[in-house]
Amino acid sequence: MARKPKQSTKSGLPPGRVVYIGNKEDSPVRITVIDYDSNDLKEISVNNVQDIAQYQFTQTCSWINIDGIHKTDIIEDVGKLYQIHPLILEDIVNTQQRPKLEVHDDYVFIVFKMLDYDYATNEVIIEQVSMILGHNYVISFQENIGDVFEQLRSRIRNPESRFRQNGSDYLVFALLDCVVDNYFTVIEKLDEQLEEFENDAFNNPGKHIAERLNKIRRDTIYIRKAVWPLREMVNHMLSGDIKPIKAETHIYLRDLYDHTIQVLDTIEMYRDVLSGIMDVYLSNLSYKMNEVMKTLTIISSLFIPLTFIVGVYGMNFEHMPELKLANGYFMIWAVMILVALIMFVYMKAKKWL
Amino acid sequence: MARKPKQSTKSGLPPGRVVYIGNKEDSPVRITVIDYDSNDLKEISVNNVQDIAQYQFTQTCSWINIDGIHKTDIIEDVGKLYQIHPLILEDIVNTQQRPKLEVHDDYVFIVFKMLDYDYATNEVIIEQVSMILGHNYVISFQENIGDVFEQLRSRIRNPESRFRQNGSDYLVFALLDCVVDNYFTVIEKLDEQLEEFENDAFNNPGKHIAERLNKIRRDTIYIRKAVWPLREMVNHMLSGDIKPIKAETHIYLRDLYDHTIQVLDTIEMYRDVLSGIMDVYLSNLSYKMNEVMKTLTIISSLFIPLTFIVGVYGMNFEHMPELKLANGYFMIWAVMILVALIMFVYMKAKKWL
Amino acid sequence: MARKPKQSTKSGLPPGRVVYIGNKEDSPVRITVIDYDSNDLKEISVNNVQDIAQYQFTQTCSWINIDGIHKTDIIEDVGKLYQIHPLILEDIVNTQQRPKLEVHDDYVFIVFKMLDYDYATNEVIIEQVSMILGHNYVISFQENIGDVFEQLRSRIRNPESRFRQNGSDYLVFALLDCVVDNYFTVIEKLDEQLEEFENDAFNNPGKHIAERLNKIRRDTIYIRKAVWPLREMVNHMLSGDIKPIKAETHIYLRDLYDHTIQVLDTIEMYRDVLSGIMDVYLSNLSYKMNEVMKTLTIISSLFIPLTFIVGVYGMNFEHMPELKLANGYFMIWAVMILVALIMFVYMKAKKWL
Amino acid sequence: MARKPKQSTKSGLPPGRVVYIGNKEDSPVRITVIDYDSNDLKEISVNNVQDIAQYQFTQTCSWINIDGIHKTDIIEDVGKLYQIHPLILEDIVNTQQRPKLEVHDDYVFIVFKMLDYDYATNEVIIEQVSMILGHNYVISFQENIGDVFEQLRSRIRNPESRFRQNGSDYLVFALLDCVVDNYFTVIEKLDEQLEEFENDAFNNPGKHIAERLNKIRRDTIYIRKAVWPLREMVNHMLSGDIKPIKAETHIYLRDLYDHTIQVLDTIEMYRDVLSGIMDVYLSNLSYKMNEVMKTLTIISSLFIPLTFIVGVYGMNFEHMPELKLANGYFMIWAVMILVALIMFVYMKAKKWL
Amino acid sequence: MARKPKQSTKSGLPPGRVVYIGNKEDSPVRITVIDYDSNDLKEISVNNVQDIAQYQFTQTCSWINIDGIHKTDIIEDVGKLYQIHPLILEDIVNTQQRPKLEVHDDYVFIVFKMLDYDYATNEVIIEQVSMILGHNYVISFQENIGDVFEQLRSRIRNPESRFRQNGSDYLVFALLDCVVDNYFTVIEKLDEQLEEFENDAFNNPGKHIAERLNKIRRDTIYIRKAVWPLREMVNHMLSGDIKPIKAETHIYLRDLYDHTIQVLDTIEMYRDVLSGIMDVYLSNLSYKMNEVMKTLTIISSLFIPLTFIVGVYGMNFEHMPELKLANGYFMIWAVMILVALIMFVYMKAKKWL
Repeated sequence: MARKPKQSTKSGLPPGRVVYIGNKEDSPVRITVIDYDSNDLKEISVNNVQDIAQYQFTQTCSWINIDGIHKTDIIEDVGKLYQIHPLILEDIVNTQQRPKLEVHDDYVFIVFKMLDYDYATNEVIIEQVSMILGHNYVISFQENIGDVFEQLRSRIRNPESRFRQNGSDYLVFALLDCVVDNYFTVIEKLDEQLEEFENDAFNNPGKHIAERLNKIRRDTIYIRKAVWPLREMVNHMLSGDIKPIKAETHIYLRDLYDHTIQVLDTIEMYRDVLSGIMDVYLSNLSYKMNEVMKTLTIISSLFIPLTFIVGVYGMNFEHMPELKLANGYFMIWAVMILVALIMFVYMKAKKWL
Repeated sequence: MARKPKQSTKSGLPPGRVVYIGNKEDSPVRITVIDYDSNDLKEISVNNVQDIAQYQFTQTCSWINIDGIHKTDIIEDVGKLYQIHPLILEDIVNTQQRPKLEVHDDYVFIVFKMLDYDYATNEVIIEQVSMILGHNYVISFQENIGDVFEQLRSRIRNPESRFRQNGSDYLVFALLDCVVDNYFTVIEKLDEQLEEFENDAFNNPGKHIAERLNKIRRDTIYIRKAVWPLREMVNHMLSGDIKPIKAETHIYLRDLYDHTIQVLDTIEMYRDVLSGIMDVYLSNLSYKMNEVMKTLTIISSLFIPLTFIVGVYGMNFEHMPELKLANGYFMIWAVMILVALIMFVYMKAKKWL
Repeated sequence: MARKPKQSTKSGLPPGRVVYIGNKEDSPVRITVIDYDSNDLKEISVNNVQDIAQYQFTQTCSWINIDGIHKTDIIEDVGKLYQIHPLILEDIVNTQQRPKLEVHDDYVFIVFKMLDYDYATNEVIIEQVSMILGHNYVISFQENIGDVFEQLRSRIRNPESRFRQNGSDYLVFALLDCVVDNYFTVIEKLDEQLEEFENDAFNNPGKHIAERLNKIRRDTIYIRKAVWPLREMVNHMLSGDIKPIKAETHIYLRDLYDHTIQVLDTIEMYRDVLSGIMDVYLSNLSYKMNEVMKTLTIISSLFIPLTFIVGVYGMNFEHMPELKLANGYFMIWAVMILVALIMFVYMKAKKWL
Repeated sequence: MARKPKQSTKSGLPPGRVVYIGNKEDSPVRITVIDYDSNDLKEISVNNVQDIAQYQFTQTCSWINIDGIHKTDIIEDVGKLYQIHPLILEDIVNTQQRPKLEVHDDYVFIVFKMLDYDYATNEVIIEQVSMILGHNYVISFQENIGDVFEQLRSRIRNPESRFRQNGSDYLVFALLDCVVDNYFTVIEKLDEQLEEFENDAFNNPGKHIAERLNKIRRDTIYIRKAVWPLREMVNHMLSGDIKPIKAETHIYLRDLYDHTIQVLDTIEMYRDVLSGIMDVYLSNLSYKMNEVMKTLTIISSLFIPLTFIVGVYGMNFEHMPELKLANGYFMIWAVMILVALIMFVYMKAKKWL
Repeated sequence: MARKPKQSTKSGLPPGRVVYIGNKEDSPVRITVIDYDSNDLKEISVNNVQDIAQYQFTQTCSWINIDGIHKTDIIEDVGKLYQIHPLILEDIVNTQQRPKLEVHDDYVFIVFKMLDYDYATNEVIIEQVSMILGHNYVISFQENIGDVFEQLRSRIRNPESRFRQNGSDYLVFALLDCVVDNYFTVIEKLDEQLEEFENDAFNNPGKHIAERLNKIRRDTIYIRKAVWPLREMVNHMLSGDIKPIKAETHIYLRDLYDHTIQVLDTIEMYRDVLSGIMDVYLSNLSYKMNEVMKTLTIISSLFIPLTFIVGVYGMNFEHMPELKLANGYFMIWAVMILVALIMFVYMKAKKWL
């Protein structure tokens, strides 16, 4: 099941105060900077937020990636350095955000969800990623240290790559594209599970089917909630109103938009497919019950009347004329076979046999 | 279950006459005033509406909070003092209002719902809050004396707080934000109950499950009805057409808007999750029935034919050849074991065992 | 159940010919006129349409109320007097109209539905009301003689009332408001019934539950159909395009609009609540069935094998060694108790006990 | 069930080639012309399309009605005479059209569905009607020779009728109005069937109920598909952009629009009502099953234990002390009555009796 | 079932790199060119992309059809020749595209789905088709070598056909029209299957029904997903903003649009019909169960009490007064017949017989 973080309780605190809401962890925070233009590339790992300051006013494009948002003082330091509004810092550390894009005077704030499939537990993990897109810098915040963006780094290192000819807006596109590509991977895993269950639901309906279908259904609900606002967000990026996003990047964003719609279409379709499987499972339960009941009824209808007949001649009355008959026993067998035949014909007529 | 107040019957009364509609209570009405600017703060508790008059034409921001709307003469006095339209006074005391925002010449009228979770009865309590937002005053009306806004008061008292630099519109935002934060708390409680029921529905399906699921479902319906119009309302506040709301407050309202959407998203999601649990519960009932019926059928199918056979040889006919056979008894055991084996193989083939 | 009038069959007749469609009744038609301005008020009851003519060109506001639309000649006379388009006269007498507002050159035509709850039969009665709103007159048509608007009359008679300061548009508002207030009364009755059924559905599920739930559900469907177009209609009245409706009346109409939305919200909510109760009822049926079947299976599983055993030793074979054993009878009891215990343990393990 | 014509297979044929798609029939084609203005009226029946030519350039309004579209050469001749685009001729003979209105330079093309109720088979028949509305002519095409429009003809013949004062656009309105009035007749028939089934579903649930409900449901689906686009179409006619439709006709079209909406509202409502009846039917099946199972369980629970007891004392062990007791027989009756009482009390407590 | 291709996993690869995603096949790629104007027509089959180059700058209309997209170097060569953006080449070879239309400076890119019904496996096959529409050329890409467009070729060869008078935009329309016509063929096949199942569901409900209904339902879901975006796409083509599409082609596109809507309407209707059949199937299962249970209950209720009675007189107590009675045996028969009658009357009253 999609690991759903608890809703936060923060009522009454003044808005814009940075309080980390999520699973507190002791893990360290990793800060990496890649500073590049078409000619040069510098790549460093810093421990102190002050070490980033040198990249702030350069003309090169800087990608500052911060893995871990539980140390709120680091977030606040970054916020002060880049003059980011306190409400945004609060949004970055609150992992309950709905995906959104906010345009501010000097930068754009983007928050969205990353999906991951945990093969060990068959769980979908939802992680929040925030980004600040400035004129020539991108600051990205992840909840945990991960290697999702490692592929991007190696592409940036290649001097021939599109990154080196484009600016910070292309980097933001690439980060989003990487996340949406990941959605497909997760959906593919769900799809595999669906097919597996479908066979089970048809051939081997057990109690676990309903529960596992519900688990996938709920994963679908959580993924839908995480992905749905992305559509509107990418559409907003395409509107042309957002300064740091250049017209050349639009063709890529349009591609991203198509992918987002495709993810949503696929999720909607899965909901339909899921409810179809559930219906088949339930109707098969009903059908099996019918089969079982028919068997019980056939056996009972055949033998209960016969058992009554033999019971009659097991009575110990002193005067029972039939018992004295020489072939009474065989006559009673004849009667019983007749009764059985009648029941058989009746059930045949009712199409139970 | 969400305590749902009765619909009012007021047909034929002229519109704009102040009649309190709600649970009449004898509890007193509490009127408190906080009057502040960036330098000063006065905080008083008044008994008489006339005592408020002195704060009406000051340049400081005044927050008049009235806990209790059942004494309609007090509401009318306030209405006269601040020249509020009689239809609005009627809306304030009628606790059946749909959340809405009405722009008038000199003030804005806002009405919305506050949710509270009663831990004693596991009930969600819905209370109506109305606000009049004027140039430099806010009048808020609550149904009962509560301490929901106490945290805001202590923040206002702090001379460094944003309240002291901002005007009445920020105060209105803070009141709304406080209420929406409370929604999360209530939703979190429902969420806890949901998880509990989910386990029950899977492992221990009892009659109470359906009823308790229905109770949560209905709570969700009532909350949705209370929260849904808030979205439109906050959006209206962001439209820029409302004079008393200054541009600086927009960034906070946008945050509030995001939270409102999040509440609605979460409620929609819960409806899906709830119906999923209900489906699982019902399919588990079906599955259990199947199991029970299978057991009955297996037992009956095995023993009813055998009981017939032993019945046959319990008959008292004088001439029954088999009874005379030396090993007739053992032969009949052989027959019975054979019959049982055939039934066993049949049921194995049907996958009932 | 909402008394649903039959659809009319009138194919091929030319449009605009006044044919009364509804339940023909012999009851008389009542025509009353109230003519008033801020100083004076005249109130008469007329038998002849010509008697109205005198009020047509006065500067005072006239309310002509016609109870009964089955005498189509009266409607035609009124139509001629006030120069109303024949298609509108047709609409007035056809009680199948959808609520609507039509703006014509000299007047506005409004048609809507009035709900009433018949306590004798627990039925919701839907009645059509039409109104012609002219510059300084209102003509209202009701299907039957009723006393719904009696309260309005007494308010008009009061020289201090808002009616006397306002014109015909306020009168139209007051008529609509009175009708919408009545909706609440009807909904309240449905609500009471709902609560009653809910208890029954949980504690005492009988056959009648489904039928009575369906009856309420259908009432809800009919009410929804009657009320839904009202929203659009009142919104149209608020658009500012309708000449006879003055700006001062807008604040009242806005209030009316809020009430209409509230009625619709409540009806939508009831549909959700109703289907929730139905689900609980069905799941309780399922659950009860489970309980019953479990009992049957327990009894059968315990006693059918034992009955077989005693049957075995009821056989009359001449050579049955066990029968000769001194304590064979007690040994067989021991075996039977063992079998019963095994079944008991098995069923305990299956959680049937 | 609504007779649903087969989808056509025509892939690869060039668009705009007139191929009749429908049930080929040998029945003749009837062509009638009514040519009228306020003074004169000529009414002829022609066999040859060329005979229509004389009415083409007159100033009078001509209504050419063609009953039967299976002779495609006739349609092509008409098309050449009136210079109608080949694609439209294709649409006329293809009876699979969706209702639509197409504005062309010299004429308007309208296609819609006519419903008829076949009392013999309880079937709803859907027939396609197309119309070409030109400056002063209307050409209408029906699939079969019918008498639906006969009433219109007699009204046209009346020199006082509105037809004679109005032009071709009023004729088109009248044809549409006649068709929509027919919808009401068909819906009324469905309504009668619904009421009948509702009683059956409650009192006498048999297998046929589900099938007949499904039949009505499917009729509703087909009717909805046929009627739904009409709304948009009539709205388009009201837009004012369509040259041949004069402003004076708008009041009639508005009336038609209201009727269309009413038909759609009623169909939507029937869907709700239908699914309500289905729910009641299913819940009654469930309830009946419960009753049956309860009876079985009561009988079994009472007698199966007792049968075991009497079985015990039917055993033939040589040493069974109870059998020797003087009043053993009566004691065992006492035991059995006690057991029966206990079962009775138990079932009473479970509310099964 | 609709053969659903796997979702691709391509995360991290730079966008715009041509990687074929689909079932890799060794089958060759077929490239055919038809170059025509109103006078001339050349038709060749080329092996080398360079051979197409000669047709690039002619004034005639060229249709380059490429069957097979698994050889990505061919696609890239075509892309270079016609200067197509790498992202589009990527879309062409990725068979997971959502139908869409993209307007670029020099050409329009169109991608859509072709449906085919495999009669051998009763499967619906979904294939992707892409097209580049330039000033005077159309390049079409199919996944496999097929003969769907063969009919178009023979029509182009006819010098009288509309193709020869029109340009590349008419060719694009004809290709789309051919595909949409194919949709009808597939839907017709589904329709036939539906009717077959409907009869089965009513008369012969077996386990396979639910599964086969689900198979059709899923086909419907996949088709809907493939066809839905086409509506928007054709609408876009009609908007008038797309340079290569001339005004004369609009009338054909409008026809195409109508057909698309009709396909969608039909699919939506099938969903309704399908769920209706499923409901009937389930209710028939329920009904059959009821019948079976009633039979069991009748048999059991009649014979279980009687079996008890005969069991009583099979007991071996030494003192059982009834056994000594001369006509005790006949009296017990009388009692048993009486009991049977009472049960019969009871069940008659309950309407079980």
